[in-house]
Amino acid sequence: MAGFQAPSLARLIDQFNRLPGIGAKSAQRLAYHVLNMSRDEALQFSQAIMDAHDNIHKCERCCNLTDDKLCPICKSTKRDNSTICVVEEPKDVVAFEKTQEYSGVYHVLHGVISPLNGIGPDQISIKELVKRVSEGGVSEVIMATNATAEGETTAIYISRLLKPLGVKVTRLAYGIPVGADLEYADEVTLARALEGRNEL
Amino acid sequence: MAGFQAPSLARLIDQFNRLPGIGAKSAQRLAYHVLNMSRDEALQFSQAIMDAHDNIHKCERCCNLTDDKLCPICKSTKRDNSTICVVEEPKDVVAFEKTQEYSGVYHVLHGVISPLNGIGPDQISIKELVKRVSEGGVSEVIMATNATAEGETTAIYISRLLKPLGVKVTRLAYGIPVGADLEYADEVTLARALEGRNEL
Repeated sequence: MAGFQAPSLARLIDQFNRLPGIGAKSAQRLAYHVLNMSRDEALQFSQAIMDAHDNIHKCERCCNLTDDKLCPICKSTKRDNSTICVVEEPKDVVAFEKTQEYSGVYHVLHGVISPLNGIGPDQISIKELVKRVSEGGVSEVIMATNATAEGETTAIYISRLLKPLGVKVTRLAYGIPVGADLEYADEVTLARALEGRNEL
Repeated sequence: MAGFQAPSLARLIDQFNRLPGIGAKSAQRLAYHVLNMSRDEALQFSQAIMDAHDNIHKCERCCNLTDDKLCPICKSTKRDNSTICVVEEPKDVVAFEKTQEYSGVYHVLHGVISPLNGIGPDQISIKELVKRVSEGGVSEVIMATNATAEGETTAIYISRLLKPLGVKVTRLAYGIPVGADLEYADEVTLARALEGRNEL
């Protein structure tokens, strides 16, 4: 393959090909797209990579990604600091913010407890959460880890650490996704939806 | 959306989002991937963009993309310079090279004649091809533009320019794709396959 292509083009295609979910054909298409950009656009793209890579780090308080000491949410004076929503990844914060229904703050674990993958409680930001709660001012911690076995385990592990600190620990509701057809819901979800039924 | 995310992260996500075929979710995933790269990897990616953008231009002879005066194929002493395969885009060269069945050289048009999009014969590299053929040493020109109305028109247009120069102009065969089910072949393709039938 390599021999008939210009080296700097082959290198750019290879760089795109290394990204997750980008196959050989897409990598080629993206590389040609870069060649067709104006120099300014290419420079902006190139610089955005290093800029983000060099400046983004974890927020001192909630461990979400930020380029400042505190993330925009922790810095905001409009958020309710007494409610902390605990999520696995920064992208989960994005998902919650999109609902425009949550005004509390977050705590990003950056993973879940997963003994099979060698990830114990110390590898994710649990101690930062415990410290934050023990400093006071927190009334509720919402466990919003994924509804997987590992997310579940992590939620239970954390709730056991937090309850002795006198804080209310809650878990996201399980049930039928809105708009979904009952026919396609799996048994476990259906059973949980039944269990958590509410009076109308 | 923007307010709760770190500016340099938002900018990187936006840059990925501008690429063709990359939606909001993928852009986010790719940006997080960049953050998780080592600084060296990020730097390589960032530099590959500018490196390719600044160094890649058209080959003096065949108009394929290269970072040298001539592309690797035109520079090669192992290629048969008397056969030129005319293609629309650089990616078509990649497709032919993958077959490992073609030892001639190429000519890349960078488009097709398309009056509806305001692209006439002068906007694509036809004159470079005519000049190349008229300089002699070429015995056959294979028209390998796409099997679309525009690719077809371009092939016919070019063949009319080249034939007076005493060169043989051929067109790729039409027919059933290898491995395809007859049932799913459209009528036009089937008719062409019948028309072009060969003795066994």
